[in-house]
Amino acid sequence: MILLDGKKVSNDIKDEITEQVKKMKAKGEKVPHLAAIIVGNDGASLTYVASKVKACERVGFDSTMIRMPNTTSEIELLDKIEELNENPDIDGFIIQLPLPKQINTQQVLLAVNPDKDVDGFHPMNFGRMALDMSTFIPATPFGILELLDRYGVDTQGKHTVVIGRSHIVGRPMSILMGRKGFPGNSTVTLTHSHTKNITQITSQADIIISALGVPNFLKAEMVKDDVVIIDVGITRVTDESSEKGYYITGDVDFENVSKKASYITPVPGGVGPMTIAMLLKNTLLARERQMIQ
Amino acid sequence: MILLDGKKVSNDIKDEITEQVKKMKAKGEKVPHLAAIIVGNDGASLTYVASKVKACERVGFDSTMIRMPNTTSEIELLDKIEELNENPDIDGFIIQLPLPKQINTQQVLLAVNPDKDVDGFHPMNFGRMALDMSTFIPATPFGILELLDRYGVDTQGKHTVVIGRSHIVGRPMSILMGRKGFPGNSTVTLTHSHTKNITQITSQADIIISALGVPNFLKAEMVKDDVVIIDVGITRVTDESSEKGYYITGDVDFENVSKKASYITPVPGGVGPMTIAMLLKNTLLARERQMIQ
Repeated sequence: MILLDGKKVSNDIKDEITEQVKKMKAKGEKVPHLAAIIVGNDGASLTYVASKVKACERVGFDSTMIRMPNTTSEIELLDKIEELNENPDIDGFIIQLPLPKQINTQQVLLAVNPDKDVDGFHPMNFGRMALDMSTFIPATPFGILELLDRYGVDTQGKHTVVIGRSHIVGRPMSILMGRKGFPGNSTVTLTHSHTKNITQITSQADIIISALGVPNFLKAEMVKDDVVIIDVGITRVTDESSEKGYYITGDVDFENVSKKASYITPVPGGVGPMTIAMLLKNTLLARERQMIQ
Repeated sequence: MILLDGKKVSNDIKDEITEQVKKMKAKGEKVPHLAAIIVGNDGASLTYVASKVKACERVGFDSTMIRMPNTTSEIELLDKIEELNENPDIDGFIIQLPLPKQINTQQVLLAVNPDKDVDGFHPMNFGRMALDMSTFIPATPFGILELLDRYGVDTQGKHTVVIGRSHIVGRPMSILMGRKGFPGNSTVTLTHSHTKNITQITSQADIIISALGVPNFLKAEMVKDDVVIIDVGITRVTDESSEKGYYITGDVDFENVSKKASYITPVPGGVGPMTIAMLLKNTLLARERQMIQ
């Protein structure tokens, strides 16, 4: 069994980006600049955004964190987005979700200039992805592709089963694994809450990508020998014996499934760290695209 | 076995659209107007466009067929598209494919105003579809959904296998069948040229949508009893004994598969006629959206 070490690979990617930023600076070029808008005071959201800002510092990007109050109106947020769309110094920006109830998330995501949409959530970019055109791939799916690529996991002609059809992971992953090229060319089955006989399906899979958010969902008896396991689930489970008061777990019964798997991502330290690395990668791409124009 | 009679259903849809157009006229409103650009003299393309124009006449739409020579440059075509984008009298338009070699098809499709893209080929509309937003669904997939809907074929929790990953049929169909709602909520497997053990996969399917273009590909021993068969294949097979010199056949060995199927589309007369009906439907939607604005 080989551990797909997202922590290590994400650090490699950050090192590579750091090198590229150094070269940009040496040439006197503007470095990539990522902005993040956060509305309200949700603790988890603040933590996520802070770690994104920290990652920018780590690789030498400029970053701007824009905090708006919980009472922000949709118009006020749209105005802020328009400002970032038009600011030539900002190469890419994200809006941390979830948003307060008074704001229509879909309208907000549609307002982002697709050329600065480094989260890849705009339908224009999502459609470009589904039609095999160059685009910003959403960070988590992009990170999974990168992990498979760097470990040379064979995907062509393999049967990939994706569990969960979210817009952020399951749906894009099901599209990407079935595209031409590598990693891709898989036969892909997308399963979800209406799927019957899930065990019958997972037990045929060469590769399983689980993005369900249900701890210990995928058990050893549901998979075949030598399966490749990508565990995207991140659930906080209350644990009073731990210092933080909780621990993080994935969708997979790691202890038992790892004994049958050929490759498997740990949680934490698998897909999670890749997500921020690929957000940085998208921001670098956004900067480079601007330089080509 | 119940025949999914696309000829009948498409005529029903055309009748319904005709009624709506009559009401528009009675209110003194402008009727929907579809334009079609055709570049060059390809016989099949001319036939397709002519049948689209004829369908417009049948339901009372205005239509405009724009013929451009085979030597048309990309710039000339883009200029024509811009003209249609800006012409308030045109509600929707299509560019008949394939285009001559000197023209980049991707650039051309990107130039169409998404609000007039009644073929649903623009990445903006494709992305909206993949993200469960309102959009123009490409006509052939839209037609298949409509057939399943009108015959009340149960799709929820069923295992749908799509054969072929084209941008026009297979890929969008795989996305649509897995979306929330009806027809949808299927567990979907998308297969293609790299798929191994295709028989193992098709023999587990409750619903098979074949868009391969290989006559007699799907045989009785590859499917289970009571399977639902949607045959999107349209291949001309040379036949000197027939008046036309060819006959039209699908991907499915209809004679034998139909004995096991619960529902099946014939070829011709199944999915084919639905495509034009749904193009009309999209044009009507384009007209109505313009009226809302």
